[in-house]
Amino acid sequence: MIRIAILGSGNLAVNLIRSIRACPETTLTALLSRNEPKTQEIPAGIAHQRLSGPMPEADIFILAVSDQAIGALASQYDFGEALVVHASGAQPISVLSGLPRHGIFYPLQTFTKSHPKGLDGVPILLESNNKDDFEILKSLALHLGGHPCAADSYQRLQAHLAAVLANNFTNHLWYLAAQQLEAAGLAGSLLQPLMEETLAKAKALGSFEAQTGPARRGDTPSLVAHRKLLDTGLLEKIYDNMSQSIANTYGTKL
Amino acid sequence: MIRIAILGSGNLAVNLIRSIRACPETTLTALLSRNEPKTQEIPAGIAHQRLSGPMPEADIFILAVSDQAIGALASQYDFGEALVVHASGAQPISVLSGLPRHGIFYPLQTFTKSHPKGLDGVPILLESNNKDDFEILKSLALHLGGHPCAADSYQRLQAHLAAVLANNFTNHLWYLAAQQLEAAGLAGSLLQPLMEETLAKAKALGSFEAQTGPARRGDTPSLVAHRKLLDTGLLEKIYDNMSQSIANTYGTKL
Repeated sequence: MIRIAILGSGNLAVNLIRSIRACPETTLTALLSRNEPKTQEIPAGIAHQRLSGPMPEADIFILAVSDQAIGALASQYDFGEALVVHASGAQPISVLSGLPRHGIFYPLQTFTKSHPKGLDGVPILLESNNKDDFEILKSLALHLGGHPCAADSYQRLQAHLAAVLANNFTNHLWYLAAQQLEAAGLAGSLLQPLMEETLAKAKALGSFEAQTGPARRGDTPSLVAHRKLLDTGLLEKIYDNMSQSIANTYGTKL
Repeated sequence: MIRIAILGSGNLAVNLIRSIRACPETTLTALLSRNEPKTQEIPAGIAHQRLSGPMPEADIFILAVSDQAIGALASQYDFGEALVVHASGAQPISVLSGLPRHGIFYPLQTFTKSHPKGLDGVPILLESNNKDDFEILKSLALHLGGHPCAADSYQRLQAHLAAVLANNFTNHLWYLAAQQLEAAGLAGSLLQPLMEETLAKAKALGSFEAQTGPARRGDTPSLVAHRKLLDTGLLEKIYDNMSQSIANTYGTKL
């Protein structure tokens, strides 16, 4: 049984708690955070401790806090001989170098408190300052249903950037697209079958092969017509740069 | 039984043919195109005719050709008293105004020859120069499993622009994200669970609520770290503009 304590009460922390509790090989010994979390955010039956005083017993402490808080937490508290990991894509392993046993447990996934999401099949990018702890983290990832992947801090930052493109930006484009429809008096929800097919096609064909649209086929009259609908502003710049990036990828002239 | 002739042999034409043939209420009377299509692109049993000589018998002609070819086709051939529609998002209905009965049948979906895709649940944006033909197009959309929506040429162009954002650009971002991973020696396929969850969350919460990431939470150190990985070029501009657009949407300071 791996005893885990989680520090943090954000999107990732709440979803990790759910996974750890659902797993027979792991147990959650404590949830620690600076502020008392809003009760509906923490699954029922989880005892919360304020971050003050001595640390509880645990084999692994997961610092699921904001990037800026990791370094301070690591230096401020005594974790004894326990393994301490952070779960950030952007912070190097070196922020934990003051601790004897440290590492990274970074799920390449998007988490939101109100939308429970387990780790089944999720790549978990792992790093550690020693081989034994790397194996422990690998076991933990496997127990929780994840797909363990060795990645150093540079690779992890690249993966984090890739996740921003693949999730944050695509989700925001869906929002902007729905706004565009609604501005024309059409329902934003009309896009849903297209969004589903976009993913299905990218999975079936790969995103390179799946690409369609005016920028790929060099249909400049459509680009001109679209630009007339756009206010001069960020969306126009995004439109131009994305179109040019597609054209460059396929050797199309715009 | 609605008799349909399709002009064109591209991604949309090939997928429309499949839908029309699978539907008991419609029959495909002819497939016409300028060039002999590559045989594997046309479903077995479909007779192809070169675009020359008189038009075959049909109740509806669907011009599923490139935007630039629509006007010339409409003026060059004699469609008699048949209803003639085009299937373009970006071309106004006026390009068909020389024909007595004309309209639009625009599925808001992405089509690729090698990836069969029916019209089930797909919004079909319809327009016509008379009410009776609008009703005929509505029946056709329903027979083929689609979701008929009235949309004038301005609304359709907005929907086409929205589809470019929601499909073309998101798919290209997935490509760029995979490239970023592969440049770091990681598999691009690691992004697949994230892509799936991105869609699942946008469907469950709506894309406004589903947004996460450094730009939304104002995590400028992550933005700075990402920018160091980007070459100065299109992707850097896309990164900056998308991040700023997200920040503006949520009132975050970057």
